[in-house]
Formats: sequence, C-alpha cells, structure tokens
Amino acid sequence: METIYLDNSATSFPKPPEVYDAIASMMKHGVNADRGGYTLARETGKVVDKTRESLARLVGVNEPSNVVFTPSATIALNTVLFGLSFSYGDNIYLSPFEHNSVLRPLYRLRDFWNVNLRMMPVERSELVYNLDELNKEFKRNRPKLVVVNHGSNVCGLVAPLTEIAALARDYGAWVLVDAAQTLGTIPIDMLKQNVDFLVFAGHKDLLGPIGVGGLVINNSTNIEPFIFGGTGVESKLENMPPEYPHRLEAGSLNVSAIAGLLAGIDFVKHNIDIRERKQRLFASLLDLLGRYPEVKAFASPNHQTRLPIVSCTVAGYTPQEFATVLDRHFNIAVRAGLHCAPKAHEFLGTAPLGAVRFSIGAFNTERDIATVGEALEQLFR
Amino acid sequence: METIYLDNSATSFPKPPEVYDAIASMMKHGVNADRGGYTLARETGKVVDKTRESLARLVGVNEPSNVVFTPSATIALNTVLFGLSFSYGDNIYLSPFEHNSVLRPLYRLRDFWNVNLRMMPVERSELVYNLDELNKEFKRNRPKLVVVNHGSNVCGLVAPLTEIAALARDYGAWVLVDAAQTLGTIPIDMLKQNVDFLVFAGHKDLLGPIGVGGLVINNSTNIEPFIFGGTGVESKLENMPPEYPHRLEAGSLNVSAIAGLLAGIDFVKHNIDIRERKQRLFASLLDLLGRYPEVKAFASPNHQTRLPIVSCTVAGYTPQEFATVLDRHFNIAVRAGLHCAPKAHEFLGTAPLGAVRFSIGAFNTERDIATVGEALEQLFR
Repeated sequence: METIYLDNSATSFPKPPEVYDAIASMMKHGVNADRGGYTLARETGKVVDKTRESLARLVGVNEPSNVVFTPSATIALNTVLFGLSFSYGDNIYLSPFEHNSVLRPLYRLRDFWNVNLRMMPVERSELVYNLDELNKEFKRNRPKLVVVNHGSNVCGLVAPLTEIAALARDYGAWVLVDAAQTLGTIPIDMLKQNVDFLVFAGHKDLLGPIGVGGLVINNSTNIEPFIFGGTGVESKLENMPPEYPHRLEAGSLNVSAIAGLLAGIDFVKHNIDIRERKQRLFASLLDLLGRYPEVKAFASPNHQTRLPIVSCTVAGYTPQEFATVLDRHFNIAVRAGLHCAPKAHEFLGTAPLGAVRFSIGAFNTERDIATVGEALEQLFR
Repeated sequence: METIYLDNSATSFPKPPEVYDAIASMMKHGVNADRGGYTLARETGKVVDKTRESLARLVGVNEPSNVVFTPSATIALNTVLFGLSFSYGDNIYLSPFEHNSVLRPLYRLRDFWNVNLRMMPVERSELVYNLDELNKEFKRNRPKLVVVNHGSNVCGLVAPLTEIAALARDYGAWVLVDAAQTLGTIPIDMLKQNVDFLVFAGHKDLLGPIGVGGLVINNSTNIEPFIFGGTGVESKLENMPPEYPHRLEAGSLNVSAIAGLLAGIDFVKHNIDIRERKQRLFASLLDLLGRYPEVKAFASPNHQTRLPIVSCTVAGYTPQEFATVLDRHFNIAVRAGLHCAPKAHEFLGTAPLGAVRFSIGAFNTERDIATVGEALEQLFR
C-alpha cells in the first residue's frame, strides 16, 4: 500500500522525476564548482550560475550575485540575523508564527544585544494581521527589523507582506521574509514589495532536494559573514571576500542539490496549475475535517492566499496518538507535535502537545484526500 | 575522451555505484528524519542512526550521539571553533597547512578573544614536524587548543597526531583534528590517540556525496551551539536542546547525503586495498614528475603515511596556465592556485600564485597516471 504523504511542509515529497534526474546526472558528472578551472568544474559552475539567475528572476531581483546559497533555510536565517548589526534597545518585530529557525536566533540576539522582540498583532479569532494596530506599534516602538513569516507552517496563514513591508519602510526598518514555506507557491517580488532579505528553502515548494536553501539580498547593508572557510577565490584574504555571493558562501557548494533545485524551479514555473490544484484538494480536506465534531481544525480562513496546511486537535487522542493511528492503520503520513513553531501553538491554544498537521503537496491526488475521509469515517462514524 | 580526474582532494570522483544507489533510493523513499513519527520518517531516521554508529566505530568513540552531522566539514570546524570558550591571551596552535576553513575562523577568534595563534614548528626541508621544538613551545606558551591538520591538501603531509596529542594532553589542551583529507584513508582512534574533537568531510576519502560532514566529540566540554533552529525535539526550549547531537543539529538533516555517506563508508571498509593502490599510483606519479627538471614537486617524503597529493610548479607556466594546458589538450583535471590553504603555499615558497595539484582517488588507474606521463613527455621532451 502506497503511503499517503501529507507532510509536505516538512519536505515536499516526492520530487518531480526531472529533479531526481538532474541530481543523479550532476552526481555522476559534476565535481566541485569552479570558475577558472578545468572543464568539468566549469560546467558544474555554469549550473550554479543558472540556478542563481533562475532564483533572481523568481523573486524579482536584478543581480544573480545577490542570491547566496546555503545548505538550508535555517543557515540562511542564521546568516542574516547574526550578520546584521543591532544596538541596545533596538526593536525587532516578529509574528506568533515563527519557526524555531527564526525564534532561536532571535532569542540569542535578545540575550546578546538586548534587543526587544515585539510580536506583531494578529487577531486570533479571524487569523488576520491587524495592520492599524501594527502601525501604532511601529509609531510607539520604531522597528529596526521586521521579520515576516510569509506563510505559517502550522496554520497556512499568509502574511500581508506588501502592507507590512510598506509600513516598515516608513520607519526605515529592514524587512526579512522567511519564505521557507511559500517560495514556489506564493509569488514574491522583492523590488516591488520592498523586501530587503528573503530566505528560501530548496526542498519545500520549489520541489528541490534537502541540502540547499538560501538568502536573497536587496539591500546595501553589508551582512557580516557568519560561516568562515574556503571560497575558491581570494584565498589569501584573512577575512571572507567582500563581495556577494562569496562573502557568505564558505566551503564546497552542494552542486547536486543546486542542480536539483534548478530542475524543481523549472518544474514549478512550467506547471502553473499546481497552486490551484493544491487549493482545491485543501478545500476538500477542510470540508472532510469539518464533518466531525471530534476534530478541531486550525487553518487560515483566507481562501485566496492561504497555504494548504491545517493543524488539528482530535478529541480522545493526543496529536502523537492520532498521527500514529493514521500511520499504522491507514498509511497516512502526517506530522504531530509543535512543528518547530511553539509560539504558533501557544497562539492557537494547542500548546504544549501541539496538533496533527496535514500539508498538501504538488503530487497529492483526490484519492489521497478521499483516503483521509475514509479514515475519519472509520474512526468517528 | 574520458576525463582523467586528479582533483580528488577537492572532492572524490566518481563515487562507488553503491553510493549513487543509496542516494537515489533515499531521495525516492526518504523524507524528513524523525524518531517518533510515521513509518517513512522513522525508516529515514534509522539510516541516520546507522550512519552515526558506523562513524563512531570508524573513529573509535563509544557513543553514536557524539557524532554530529553538519552540511560540511567547514561548518563542523566553525561549530567547534566558535563553540569553545577562550580567554584573552590563550594560545591556539596550528600548522602551516591549515585550510581556510580553519584559518579564517581562527583569525576571527584572534580578533574577538585576543587569542594568540602560534605555528607548530615544521622543518621545511624534510617536511617533518619538530616535536622537540613543539614541546619547548608548549612549555613557553601553554596551549589551550591544538588544531592538527591531519593531512595537508597541498602536499599530503600527515601530521604525527599521536605524538602531538600526547604532548597537548600534558598541558591540558584540547586537540581538534581536521581530518577532512584523511578520514577513510588514515586510521584514527580518538580514544587511544587522545583526540577531543574530530572534523570529517563526507565527500572526500569516505566517498560520500557533497552535503554532509560532521564533528565527533570525545570531551565533556560543552560546545555552545553555533547554528540555531528547529530540532524536531524539545521545540519549546528557547535554546537548542542540551544534549548531543540535537544541540548542534539545527534544521532538516540531509538524509540522502547521509545515506550516501553510509554506503561510502561501507565501501571503504570493504575495500581495504584502496590506500595501497593509491600509494602505488602516487609513487608512479612522483617518479614521472621527477623526470623533468621543469617540474618542481612538493610532496611529503614519508612513504608510510603520506596522502597521494602533490603540488607542482612548472617552469614556463603559471599554475593556472599549466592546469589549462592539461585540461584542454589532455583532458586531465587538476586544480591550480592556492587550494584554500594560503599559508601552506607561503611555507612551501609557492605563494602567491600557488601550484598545480594532482590528487589521486580510489578510482584512478595506472592508465590515468600513464596519460599524465604522456602529457609531460609531449610538453617537455
């Protein structure tokens, strides 16, 4: 029996065949990327350059060299958060939906620089950002940095990025977008939307493999290097080279993962119906979950822009128990717990045990959702 | 015409077929690793556990949880160097052979903590560490940390680890071994050899893919986390979880790379003649290079323990020019320049242009070396 995979927020699965092929081909033909070196290394370097260009176009920046590859979105977030300079008392705004890859570096900044971490106001009942209140907050406590969780990995809420960034701009604040859950699904234009820094994960909605993420820079503030090592260029320098991307790329690039990411982005660009299909399946899923009073579902009510992610609590089961039942008896793979976003669960009232999360990917089918329906029917009829 | 690949110090290439298969299989069946989750995630987690166990056995430590996976050796080195605490005036010893993944973090520590960076004495003419002199140095300037470049990526010199670590132990210093170039070729036993911290690269002599490296810990000093993010466990904590490996593993593990690494380690363990074959080919290569007065070769004279790596300067060519000639006319892939080890080239007298490096891997053949011979004959006869 095939597993019904509904854990696409953790990592999208499966990947398009083109992605597997690109990775396998790069593994067998590619070596360490290099600009000036031998033919194999140069060919490898070209794939890296093409991927930078593809990402730059995707997020609306002009300079591919402002696309920095990191091994993960986590490392990209650490790179930008620890690479910016703060002063005692600076205000950093965040949302209740931040992942631990944002929260934990921010706690560190709080302890180190004595910055204030301030929650952006979100209406709990309607799951909507209160922009008037936010503006007042910004007026009271001028923002230095606004971290925007572009899409929640717990409830699928998509932040009103354009509006938040416009407000932040009025106060001269940096805008950092955590697009780990959204890039590939929700369009973004860093220039038009006034985004200074954007972090992406290669292995989620861009359909690439685990092993590559990155940071896109649209701001002239120099980010201090966070990881130090070989760059293949300017090796004599004691510091990292001053220019992007080398400044922030220490060590061998994961060229196979980058080749897979390029294929994933191409697939996403050529299959523009993915988002609509996911939204349709998601509506069916929410409809099914809504039939059972035992199930309490937490999802964004915004049909237009939400991500197809819902977290549920289920009467009579801990989240872990319910996930285990779905796994063992129905071969349905979902993720239970806090989803590395403890504040989101506090906000939703589902802490400390968390919830069971269903997240839909590009390759889920109506049959998958129907199987969830059958499982619910068997468990609760 | 097949490329003659002699850049195995950058990354070993090709990998054993088993490695490609393990990666492809994990890509198609594996998802995010997880202990308590659904079947697919648990199966993935088991491969991660097995790889930890395999590595622990390989380096002689008892606790697999002391094997920390990082996306690269560079990040593992940054993790340990920035995770230890130093005081003003502490002495950190290093060798002239350090890679920029050691040097650049050390320069940072020097600037931040005011530690003293002290070169271990190496006799230039014989390429041998002067242990008597080192002992005197340690007496004069007590070491806090000794970084041992286990094998040079420029000249193949293997450090006398046992002796250096024994001396360091007498002074209560930490011993950090950069085994990026050696693990898989030179045996190591962290317990017996008194090694506190060992860093490995998955994609070099262990024959795994780019995308995984790590740190092995054999010391009770707590390494402060360097990268902060999701851990899948103890998500409520503001800090990283206190226990290894979670403490130092933020974000999704690269499970495909880890599966490939496991297959690579298995291959190395089952093909115990690799080292001898490489040494034999290396002796032939050195013999060929020695025939031409135009070529000046820098390699360790220690037949027993050296790595099959040689850097050359060639009369009438810059290193880059010579590498380009080998690439264009003979399809021989070698690496020119400073090899991210600028101090090594200063030491050898080959700075600032560096040299042309030949490095032999598990799959090179006598035919490959003969082709180098033919190239030299054509160029210099």
